[in-house]
Amino acid sequence: MAGQIYIIGMGPGFKSMMTEAAFSAMEKSDVIVGYTVYIDLVKEHFPEKEFFTTPMKKEIERCRACFDYAISGKDVAFICSGDAGVYGMAAPMFELLPEYTTDNFGEENITVIPGVTAAISGAAVLGAPINHDFCVISLSDLLTPWDRIEKRLQAAIMGDFAIAIYNPSSHKRHDYLKKACSIMLAAGADKNRACGYVENIGREGQSYNTCTLKELMDTEVNMFTTVFIGNSNSKIIGDKIVTPRGYKYE
Amino acid sequence: MAGQIYIIGMGPGFKSMMTEAAFSAMEKSDVIVGYTVYIDLVKEHFPEKEFFTTPMKKEIERCRACFDYAISGKDVAFICSGDAGVYGMAAPMFELLPEYTTDNFGEENITVIPGVTAAISGAAVLGAPINHDFCVISLSDLLTPWDRIEKRLQAAIMGDFAIAIYNPSSHKRHDYLKKACSIMLAAGADKNRACGYVENIGREGQSYNTCTLKELMDTEVNMFTTVFIGNSNSKIIGDKIVTPRGYKYE
Repeated sequence: MAGQIYIIGMGPGFKSMMTEAAFSAMEKSDVIVGYTVYIDLVKEHFPEKEFFTTPMKKEIERCRACFDYAISGKDVAFICSGDAGVYGMAAPMFELLPEYTTDNFGEENITVIPGVTAAISGAAVLGAPINHDFCVISLSDLLTPWDRIEKRLQAAIMGDFAIAIYNPSSHKRHDYLKKACSIMLAAGADKNRACGYVENIGREGQSYNTCTLKELMDTEVNMFTTVFIGNSNSKIIGDKIVTPRGYKYE
Repeated sequence: MAGQIYIIGMGPGFKSMMTEAAFSAMEKSDVIVGYTVYIDLVKEHFPEKEFFTTPMKKEIERCRACFDYAISGKDVAFICSGDAGVYGMAAPMFELLPEYTTDNFGEENITVIPGVTAAISGAAVLGAPINHDFCVISLSDLLTPWDRIEKRLQAAIMGDFAIAIYNPSSHKRHDYLKKACSIMLAAGADKNRACGYVENIGREGQSYNTCTLKELMDTEVNMFTTVFIGNSNSKIIGDKIVTPRGYKYE
């Protein structure tokens, strides 16, 4: 009989930030599959388990390994950092599923278990930067043409959304956040727009800062950073960034 | 000595969808504060606790009660459905904090504990509808002028975001989803755009459907529904909706 595949959002990393469902799916699986770095974060809880890891850019090998394990009868926990369906492995798994579908294997063998994505966990650290309508945009152009990213940044400003930016930087893209800030300024965002960023959310070395959009433009962040741009009503209160929901206080 | 306030995202409701941090903050608090309906979802786990509930539209009373309890020395768990900072209570709490700040009470007394918001938990049920850049938009015009909501729907289509729609309907706003669909169609969304919706996410009676944008326009949903609009690349695979991340398969 074929096994079950649990595509699991593990949150930022620590067990305390996982849901009970995420942890117990790992517990009951025969094998845990994931990116090397994330596997290292959960290994200590399951010293006796079988693990299958692949490095970065080998995501599809990871997906195919999950199907192979499940079809051979093993229950598989496929872990993603943050959420399973936000830039996660849920989409490629459902895209590949028809290739593996038989009378004995199909949609009923796959469960997605959601997790706390960085927009949510980072927002909690910074206060309440996305407490109204918001967008999530990745600056990584590995899989997305840059002109589409540019269009989304412009639309986000036109719609006056609060924005969470993923993958703001990498070795090859160290100036992408600067470029993104220029695009947002050109699209009409005020240079004093309230912004903030969090490094190493929910991990060792977590830190955060608030600043204006103008200041953000001249800030170098690393690849472990999630960046937040407030909407036109957002404000810095103390050292938090707050996007009002619209309540009146008396 | 003043107590701590934990503003907690409890996820869709069941304990299995809470993070360990969320549950343990409730466990160690002296009093649990929240909207009547959400308190009923956690009461069974803490039969001995003190509870403070207020009905809908009494959110600010709830916030003030948290401050009063904490200043009187009690630890307070302030629970929100989904996440604490997505249309949640984190923003009003930080907006009210300066009123209550003294030498002995301030930012250090407040912790936001993130949770799984409906965009994430609903997406997991539907497959992978927001597996690329996405927006979250609430159709509730209680606290937001409708023209701003309209502008955001238009911008979301212009930016070709996947979209999660909160509060698509209520007794007084039964035709708001229809209006939203018209706006998106007028903004250039294809009538065959892949869409889906989930009712009672992670609760008794959970159900989901996929459809086209045109079909969605003629669908009546209730207030316990979260609606998803794919981007221009999204597709229905089996009975799931999938927004590709952009991987090539071989």
